[in-house]
Amino acid sequence: MDAFLLKSRGMLLAYDQGLEHGPTDFDERNVDPAFVMKLASTGRFNGIIFQKGLAEKYYDGRVPLILKVNGKTNLVKGEPLARQICSVERAARIGARAVGYTIYLGSAHENIMLEEFGRIQEQAHGLKMAAIAWIYPRGEAVENDTAPEIVAYAARTGLELGADAVKIKYTGDVDSFKWAVKSAGKTKVFMSGGPKAPSELDFLKQVRGALDAGAAGLAVGRNVWQSSDPLRMARALRKLVVENLSVEEAIQA
Amino acid sequence: MDAFLLKSRGMLLAYDQGLEHGPTDFDERNVDPAFVMKLASTGRFNGIIFQKGLAEKYYDGRVPLILKVNGKTNLVKGEPLARQICSVERAARIGARAVGYTIYLGSAHENIMLEEFGRIQEQAHGLKMAAIAWIYPRGEAVENDTAPEIVAYAARTGLELGADAVKIKYTGDVDSFKWAVKSAGKTKVFMSGGPKAPSELDFLKQVRGALDAGAAGLAVGRNVWQSSDPLRMARALRKLVVENLSVEEAIQA
Amino acid sequence: MDAFLLKSRGMLLAYDQGLEHGPTDFDERNVDPAFVMKLASTGRFNGIIFQKGLAEKYYDGRVPLILKVNGKTNLVKGEPLARQICSVERAARIGARAVGYTIYLGSAHENIMLEEFGRIQEQAHGLKMAAIAWIYPRGEAVENDTAPEIVAYAARTGLELGADAVKIKYTGDVDSFKWAVKSAGKTKVFMSGGPKAPSELDFLKQVRGALDAGAAGLAVGRNVWQSSDPLRMARALRKLVVENLSVEEAIQA
Amino acid sequence: MDAFLLKSRGMLLAYDQGLEHGPTDFDERNVDPAFVMKLASTGRFNGIIFQKGLAEKYYDGRVPLILKVNGKTNLVKGEPLARQICSVERAARIGARAVGYTIYLGSAHENIMLEEFGRIQEQAHGLKMAAIAWIYPRGEAVENDTAPEIVAYAARTGLELGADAVKIKYTGDVDSFKWAVKSAGKTKVFMSGGPKAPSELDFLKQVRGALDAGAAGLAVGRNVWQSSDPLRMARALRKLVVENLSVEEAIQA
Amino acid sequence: MDAFLLKSRGMLLAYDQGLEHGPTDFDERNVDPAFVMKLASTGRFNGIIFQKGLAEKYYDGRVPLILKVNGKTNLVKGEPLARQICSVERAARIGARAVGYTIYLGSAHENIMLEEFGRIQEQAHGLKMAAIAWIYPRGEAVENDTAPEIVAYAARTGLELGADAVKIKYTGDVDSFKWAVKSAGKTKVFMSGGPKAPSELDFLKQVRGALDAGAAGLAVGRNVWQSSDPLRMARALRKLVVENLSVEEAIQA
Repeated sequence: MDAFLLKSRGMLLAYDQGLEHGPTDFDERNVDPAFVMKLASTGRFNGIIFQKGLAEKYYDGRVPLILKVNGKTNLVKGEPLARQICSVERAARIGARAVGYTIYLGSAHENIMLEEFGRIQEQAHGLKMAAIAWIYPRGEAVENDTAPEIVAYAARTGLELGADAVKIKYTGDVDSFKWAVKSAGKTKVFMSGGPKAPSELDFLKQVRGALDAGAAGLAVGRNVWQSSDPLRMARALRKLVVENLSVEEAIQA
Repeated sequence: MDAFLLKSRGMLLAYDQGLEHGPTDFDERNVDPAFVMKLASTGRFNGIIFQKGLAEKYYDGRVPLILKVNGKTNLVKGEPLARQICSVERAARIGARAVGYTIYLGSAHENIMLEEFGRIQEQAHGLKMAAIAWIYPRGEAVENDTAPEIVAYAARTGLELGADAVKIKYTGDVDSFKWAVKSAGKTKVFMSGGPKAPSELDFLKQVRGALDAGAAGLAVGRNVWQSSDPLRMARALRKLVVENLSVEEAIQA
Repeated sequence: MDAFLLKSRGMLLAYDQGLEHGPTDFDERNVDPAFVMKLASTGRFNGIIFQKGLAEKYYDGRVPLILKVNGKTNLVKGEPLARQICSVERAARIGARAVGYTIYLGSAHENIMLEEFGRIQEQAHGLKMAAIAWIYPRGEAVENDTAPEIVAYAARTGLELGADAVKIKYTGDVDSFKWAVKSAGKTKVFMSGGPKAPSELDFLKQVRGALDAGAAGLAVGRNVWQSSDPLRMARALRKLVVENLSVEEAIQA
Repeated sequence: MDAFLLKSRGMLLAYDQGLEHGPTDFDERNVDPAFVMKLASTGRFNGIIFQKGLAEKYYDGRVPLILKVNGKTNLVKGEPLARQICSVERAARIGARAVGYTIYLGSAHENIMLEEFGRIQEQAHGLKMAAIAWIYPRGEAVENDTAPEIVAYAARTGLELGADAVKIKYTGDVDSFKWAVKSAGKTKVFMSGGPKAPSELDFLKQVRGALDAGAAGLAVGRNVWQSSDPLRMARALRKLVVENLSVEEAIQA
Repeated sequence: MDAFLLKSRGMLLAYDQGLEHGPTDFDERNVDPAFVMKLASTGRFNGIIFQKGLAEKYYDGRVPLILKVNGKTNLVKGEPLARQICSVERAARIGARAVGYTIYLGSAHENIMLEEFGRIQEQAHGLKMAAIAWIYPRGEAVENDTAPEIVAYAARTGLELGADAVKIKYTGDVDSFKWAVKSAGKTKVFMSGGPKAPSELDFLKQVRGALDAGAAGLAVGRNVWQSSDPLRMARALRKLVVENLSVEEAIQA
């Protein structure tokens, strides 16, 4: 298995929030998947992350596609569970280069998601697609989902399960994130962009920190398409992720 | 996938209430599926919505068939769950042009219905049928199922899941329903008729509002076949939906 | 699908109580399935209802076989659930002309039984067998399982689900049962015999009422094989069901 | 289906206690499955009952094999549930002549076991093996698992489900057990040996009672291999079961 | 089935703690699977135990591979459940000689794991791989998981289920462990290394005790790769396990 996004560092444009949070994350412009699809190529992202419905209706083939194959709404309370809603075969037929799957580590339903990811990973590799695990510790058993030891546990779980890459939250500092990256071994680590940061500078510093800690890149959504100037943000991220420049250099872009 | 009802605006005659509510919705005339089947063609509807049993015994092929493939009674309390009760293959063999599936968004069993719809959507497309999602936010986590943000969430979920069309409740005003329609993107929006409105005028105004907001049409049951003059109601709706006339013009029909 | 018992009116001999209630329903004579099997033909019943085990060991082929494919004991309390315990293929191989399946409408497990019946109905039709639904509203959500509206709901559910016939309880009067029969549409209605009535006359009056309301017949067990003279009872029922005579005429048989 | 153990009366040596109770039932000698395997042939039993693991490693082919295909430990409290842990195909390949399956009648999980036995019975017959049901009423709903009516219910359930033989507990007296045997119809009844009886005489009297009531034999474990002289016990049982002698004659053996 | 590790005594290097406990068990050196992989061969272990992800990315083929096919994190509280996360086919393709599966005996979910192991054992044998059961009594019903009778029950369960080898905890003394080994019959017993012992001497004495009781070897992780000199520890273990020397002789190595 030698998948596209695993060859070098990369930045992925995440746009699966429509199912996870609802259109409350969107405005008149970014509610349109066509806007985000176009942004992915003009912003020179290394991949776009869609649910099946968006991919079928809006994917234009100009950047690699990562298809999220499970999901849930944020209406349901209690221990989180997201089951598979797109088959791996369908993902392949749509043209996906990788499938994405969210595991809520520590949820009372963790066992269902571990099992399901196990099957999906094998199917994806059988179809020459990468398998990326979004690993989010969550549920009553999890007090702080960005505590260094819990983020490292998430990273390691990705490696143990055979994920080609893992998407995890940033711990907040380089040193503790280094341990998470080290725990992930040969599984690439993508920092999760998360909600819009207070300022662009803040966000870029986080990304720089993750990269300095060894991350292969980031998957970012709201901090780009909620930005007043998404392309400028994309350029700045590219300087960090691909050209490996400093925050100061990136922000001048 | 290029399904019949998705080419233009349309009005669908819903008659799945026998399972969802029991015959309490019916009178001596409309309890007979043959009456409603005939009404569908004489009323020039663009589709008729049946459960499997009705389709097998009463469908006459004169209007396109949308087969509801899940359902439940209203006797069971607690978090709602409706599972698949008709296979997609059977729906195709009966001659359905689309399958319909209800998702109770926010129910504790949401994950089961999201997963099941995922499979059904792929099977339906494989058999050249459209997949329509009835998306009804319901359960303890849902306070108001016609609040603008929750209706928009329902609409968006249909898009994310790959539904060709989504059937949702009207929010009550054009502006907020516009946002729902926008959130649904390329997934067509059908307004759900709901229980019989206080007056025909009230109902027609709602439909007009939904259409003005961008809806592709409506799926209507009780407001037609509980009407004292169903054909007149059908003609009025046709003026609104197909001929795009005003409520005043429609009501004169 | 044009199954045997659906051509005309009929009376079916039910003998699935061994699993549902245990041998407490039986005496030294009727505990023997061979006795009941013989009674089915000498009593000129239109069908015999057995569970798989009885059919495999006692069915003699002299009357059509309806195979009950789910069941449970009455030991378990709480929301009722009966799952499939005989495959449709096996039923066909044993020589069944129809399969029977009980749905506890309103049970918290209703969804499981609706789904299972959905599959069984399709398999049965695929093998040219009829599918008969025993629909019994039961569980915490059901206060009175013979209330007219709930019996009509049960009848209608059979139609919606695609049952060829539905077995439901009698409401107690002709008028309200008429509504149930009407709600069932083209799905034939069989009155459920229920526990032994106070007197034979009482029972025959119920049957007459159900037939006058439009029922296609009845499925009867205890009121026949617990009778002191089962054959006389069978003859009386035959006069009602097949010859369409009055209770007075029937009782003289 | 015409299976070995169903042709005549028989005594089966049960040795599935290692999983059900743990080695606490064993001593230095009978903890060894080879000891019990040998005892089965030297004691001239008509069958040996093993779980898959014992059968694969110790079965010597000298007496017919009954393979238990479900089981559980006694550590878990609450409503009992034992699921299938050996496939019917594997049982056949090991050389089993019958499969055994335990149903905890009245358990809240009864429905799972009824369904599973239904499938196993059909598979077993398809492979020309007998299907024997261990039917033990148990769980909160069951007050007294040797009450005559509950034992008769267990016996009848075996018949209704299509078991070739049923293994049930003795009620304590001939008359009430006769009713259980009668309720089982053509399904053979094996008395369950149960825990070691206070004295050999007591045990032999129970067996004699069961046989006089019409049982086809017994399945016995602890009362044989926990005996100080297992072969003498086997001989005594053989006199009862096969030669149909009295307890007095048997005990002189 | 004649699997590699079952021919003689052996020591297995366990490294599945990354999923079970998270990287908290690791330091900068042993967090790297490549370090442990190399240690397996330089330390002359008879097998290395990996989850799928580690095996796919780090296994070098120089020592036999035992693939753990289920697992869970320690974040989830309540009754433990670990489901299958790697298929047996995949394990075979990676080159595993055996699959490992953990059963939490006495857990409320025990039935799921017994059933799953049943299937896995048959698949593994069908592919000429051994099936090793990690049997850990755990859950509310289990007070003391190293009590002699509970460890013997775990051992016996391995035998009854058809495991080729069972991995269980040491009871603390030779005599009681002898009973566990005896209970396991022809199923080989591997002592579980457990958390790092207070001193190396303590640990070696435990291993010696297990071997004297008849164990076939041990599966050890933390006591080796958390050691300041893992290779010395490996050599000492080898003297005990393979050369059957005393603790005094082993410690001089």
